[in-house]
Amino acid sequence: MTAYDKLAAHIGEYNDLLNILNTLKWDMRTQMPAGGAATRGAQLATLTKLAKDLFVSDMTARLLDAAETEMAGADADSYKTRALRQTRAAYELQKRIPAELVSRLAALGPESEAAWAAAKDASDFAGFQPYLTQMLAINIELADAIGYEDHPFDALIQQFEPGMTAAQLNVTFGELKSRLLPLLRRIVENDAPLPVDLWSADYDLAGQKALCYEMAQLIGFDFERGRLDSAPHPFEISFTRDDVRITTRYDTNYLPMSIFAALHEAGHGLYEQNIAPELTRSALTTDFIGQYAVGGASYGAHEFSSRMWENQIGRSREFWQLHFGRLQAHFPDQLADADAEHFYRAVNRVRPSLIRVEADEVTYNLHIMLRTEIEMALLEGALPVAELPEFWNAKMQEYLGLTPPDDRRGVLQDVHWSAGAFANFPCYTIGNIMSAQVLAAAHRHMPDLAIQLAQGDYAGLLGWLTESIYKHGRVYSTDELLRRISGEGLSVAPLLDYLERKYSDLYGLD
Amino acid sequence: MTAYDKLAAHIGEYNDLLNILNTLKWDMRTQMPAGGAATRGAQLATLTKLAKDLFVSDMTARLLDAAETEMAGADADSYKTRALRQTRAAYELQKRIPAELVSRLAALGPESEAAWAAAKDASDFAGFQPYLTQMLAINIELADAIGYEDHPFDALIQQFEPGMTAAQLNVTFGELKSRLLPLLRRIVENDAPLPVDLWSADYDLAGQKALCYEMAQLIGFDFERGRLDSAPHPFEISFTRDDVRITTRYDTNYLPMSIFAALHEAGHGLYEQNIAPELTRSALTTDFIGQYAVGGASYGAHEFSSRMWENQIGRSREFWQLHFGRLQAHFPDQLADADAEHFYRAVNRVRPSLIRVEADEVTYNLHIMLRTEIEMALLEGALPVAELPEFWNAKMQEYLGLTPPDDRRGVLQDVHWSAGAFANFPCYTIGNIMSAQVLAAAHRHMPDLAIQLAQGDYAGLLGWLTESIYKHGRVYSTDELLRRISGEGLSVAPLLDYLERKYSDLYGLD
Repeated sequence: MTAYDKLAAHIGEYNDLLNILNTLKWDMRTQMPAGGAATRGAQLATLTKLAKDLFVSDMTARLLDAAETEMAGADADSYKTRALRQTRAAYELQKRIPAELVSRLAALGPESEAAWAAAKDASDFAGFQPYLTQMLAINIELADAIGYEDHPFDALIQQFEPGMTAAQLNVTFGELKSRLLPLLRRIVENDAPLPVDLWSADYDLAGQKALCYEMAQLIGFDFERGRLDSAPHPFEISFTRDDVRITTRYDTNYLPMSIFAALHEAGHGLYEQNIAPELTRSALTTDFIGQYAVGGASYGAHEFSSRMWENQIGRSREFWQLHFGRLQAHFPDQLADADAEHFYRAVNRVRPSLIRVEADEVTYNLHIMLRTEIEMALLEGALPVAELPEFWNAKMQEYLGLTPPDDRRGVLQDVHWSAGAFANFPCYTIGNIMSAQVLAAAHRHMPDLAIQLAQGDYAGLLGWLTESIYKHGRVYSTDELLRRISGEGLSVAPLLDYLERKYSDLYGLD
Repeated sequence: MTAYDKLAAHIGEYNDLLNILNTLKWDMRTQMPAGGAATRGAQLATLTKLAKDLFVSDMTARLLDAAETEMAGADADSYKTRALRQTRAAYELQKRIPAELVSRLAALGPESEAAWAAAKDASDFAGFQPYLTQMLAINIELADAIGYEDHPFDALIQQFEPGMTAAQLNVTFGELKSRLLPLLRRIVENDAPLPVDLWSADYDLAGQKALCYEMAQLIGFDFERGRLDSAPHPFEISFTRDDVRITTRYDTNYLPMSIFAALHEAGHGLYEQNIAPELTRSALTTDFIGQYAVGGASYGAHEFSSRMWENQIGRSREFWQLHFGRLQAHFPDQLADADAEHFYRAVNRVRPSLIRVEADEVTYNLHIMLRTEIEMALLEGALPVAELPEFWNAKMQEYLGLTPPDDRRGVLQDVHWSAGAFANFPCYTIGNIMSAQVLAAAHRHMPDLAIQLAQGDYAGLLGWLTESIYKHGRVYSTDELLRRISGEGLSVAPLLDYLERKYSDLYGLD
C-alpha cells in the first residue's frame, strides 16, 4: 500500500462518518418520532466529535506528511495532488479552530434556535437579541481563528464558498442591483391579476406525490439510487452518489409548492448522483470544513444546479407546453379551465413580497443582498444588534418598497443566524448567477440544445453538465469550473439577460 | 465528576454509536434504495470497528480501574455496581476475542449470505457447504476464545443468553418434548378442515396498515416514541427507549401475516419503550458482547415479550371476541360470513409443516429443537457438514412426520448459519417457555387480570410487566428475573399446561 493509499483509506473512514451523520439528519427530519429528539441529539454530538477527532489527529498529520513526501514532484493538477492539497489545507484550517470554540457553538445552537423560534412566533426581536449577540461574537472569534486580510466576512464565507470575498461580492451585487431594480420597477408598473385562478381547488396529496416523482424522474433523477420523501423544509442530502435523498412539501391548495420544491431538490440530487464513481469516499467528495459529506464544488455551485433545473428549465414556457398534460392527467377537474400558458404565467408572476423563501426569480436576489449587507455591517461592528430591525425595515423599503408589519415577517423570518450560520446567504445568489452562466455556456457548446429542451429531451443537457461540472465533484473550485466552461469567473450578465428577456416577454415591456 | 461518572460518560458514547448502527440497519432494511448497499456496507464496517476500538481500549481499562477503586465496598446489588461488573466482564471477554477473528467473520458474512441465498434458490446444499464449513470453523475458534468448560455451545450461547448451557438446554428441551410430541399426535388425529375459508378474498394494504397501527396501539405501543414500517423480514429495533421502530409485512390474501407480525414486533417494542428512563445510554441498556444497543435482559427474554403479546394475548379467544369487530370495520365485505370464533380457529390451526417461520405454537418449538441438536452435533464434530441434509431430514421425520421435498424447504431455509450465528435458535423457545411462565405469574399476582384481559384492558398487564421486567433493562439476568417473579428458573410446565389447555379445547381432546 502506498502512503497515498493509506491516507485515502483514512479519509475514506472520515467520509463514512460524515455520510452516517447525513443519514441521521435525514432520518431526524423525515422519519423520527417526536420522542426521539433528545437521544438523537446525543448521538449526533458523539459522532460529530468522533469524526472531528479522527480528522484533526496525529494520525492524519503523519499520513499527510508521508503522502506529501511520496508525491513530491507529481503533476500538480492531477486528482491525487489536488486531493492531497485540499486535505492539507483543510487540516491546517481545522487545527486553527479551537475545539473549545466549536463546542461553544454546538452547545449554543439548539438553545439559540429554540429562542429564535419562540421570538419569531411572538414577533419579539428582544427575545432573540441576546442569542444573536452571542452568535455574532462566536462568529467573529471563528473568523479570527480561520484568518482573513480585509474583512471577517472573507473568513466565514470560506466555509461555504472557498475563494469568495466581501469585496468581490460587493462588486457583483452592485452590478446585479443596477439592472435588477429598474427591471422590477417596470414589472410592477405592468402587473395585472391573472385571468384564471388555479389554486382555489383541492389537489390531493397522492396525486401530487405521483407527480413529483414523475417530474424528478423526467429530468433524470435515478430512483434506483435515491428516494423522494416529505419534509416541512425541503432539502437534499446524500450518503454517497449511490444514495441520494430528496424531499418536498405539499400544500393541498397550492400545487406549485410541491412541484418546484421537487424539481429544485432533484436538481441538487442530479449533481450528487453524477459525480464520478471513483470519487466516492474520497477527499474530493468531502467538505472537510463544514464536516459534511457533499460532492459539489461549493454551496453556490450546488445551488446553481437546483436553481437551473427548478427555474431555467422548470419554469420555462417550453417545459409546460410539453408537460402541462401530465398535470391535467393527475388533476383533470381542477385544471379543466386552464392551459399551459395560464400555468406558465401563474408560476412566474413577479411581486415584491416580505418572505424570501416565497420570492420569485426577480425579487429573490434582492432579499439576499439585504441579508448580505446586514451580515457585513454586523461583523464590522458598524451595525449594533439592537438596531437590526430598523435597518432591516429600511432596506426592505429601499429594495422592495415594502415595510414588514412585524418582525416575524421581517428580520426574524430566517433560521440561519440563530443556527450560527453567517455568510451563507450569498451562496443562493451565487447559485442563481452561475445557473444562467452555465446554461448560456451549454447553449454555446450544444447548438441544438434549445431544440432538445423544446422536445423534452433533458439527457443531452444532463450529459453535458455531468462532463463539465458534476463528475468533477470537489476537484475544481467554483471559479475554476466557470472558467473552464465559459472562459470567465462569476459574471452577472447572463442572469440579467435571461431575466430581462423572460420578463419583458411576460410583462410586455419594450 | 466521580470516576464512575467518567466511565458512564464513556459508555454513553459507546451506546450512542451502537444506537447509530441500529439506525443505519433500520434504514437499510426499510428505506434505502437498492443502489446504496455497497457504500452502506463500508459505513457499517467503519462504525463497527470504531465502536469496538472505543470500547476495547486503554481508556476503558483506565476508567474501569478507577471506578472499581472508587466503588470498592459499595452495595453489590446496586444498579451502579451491577453496571460496573457487567462492563468489566464484557471488557475482559471482548479482549479475549482476537480482532483478526472478528474481521474474518465480518468479511466472510456478506459472501456467505449471498452463497446461501443462491444455494437456497437452487435448492443446492453443495453450493453452500464450503461457506458453512468455514462459518462453523470460525465459530469453533470463537467458542475457544470466549472459553467454556463442557461444550463449545456453552461459549457461543453467552452472546445471546448469558448463563445458559448446553446441558441445561438438553434437560429443558427433553422435558418439553416429552409432552409436546404426544399433544401434537392427538391434535393431528383430530384435525379437520375449517368451516369457512377466510383468505380467498383480497385485503387491501391501506386497510391492513391502519389495522396494524391500531393493534399495536391497542396493546400500548407508543407512537410518540416509535414507528411502524414495512419490511420483507419483520423486525424490531430501537435507538433508545424514546425511538423504537417496528415493522410488519403484508400479504393481500393472508391478513393474519401482517396482524400477528405487528403484534409480535410491538411486543418487542413494549419491552424497549418501558425500560426505566435513567438506564438510557448506560451499560444497562448495552449489549456489549453482541455490540448492539438493546435494553432487554437477553434474546430469550426479549422473545418472551414478543411471543406473549403475539400468542398468549393476540391469539386468545378473548382477544378476538372483543376485537374481531375492528377487523370487520376495515374489511366488511371480506369478513361478512365470518365471526370471532371462525377467526380464532383459523389463526390457531395446528399442522406439522416444513417451514419454521410459518409454524404454529405447538410445532414451532420442535423446529427449534431440531436446529439446536444439529448445532451441538456440528460443534462437537459429531456431525460432518456434508451429512447435514440427511440428518435434517431424518429429524424432521422424527419430530414432525414430514420429509422436505428439497433442501430449500429443508436445511437451507434459515439465514442464521450463513450469517455466522450459531446457538441463537434456542432463544426462540426460551422465549416461548418464559412467556407462559411470566403470564402465569402475572395471573397469580393480579387476581383480576383475566377479567381485565377479557375487557380489553391491557394497561394493568403492561404496568405489571414494566415493574417486574421491562423497567430493569439488563440489570438482572433472565434467570434472576424469572426467580424474582416466579420463585424458580426457566420451567417448561406453564407452557405445556397452556398449550394442552388451549388445544384440548380447540381440538376437543379429552
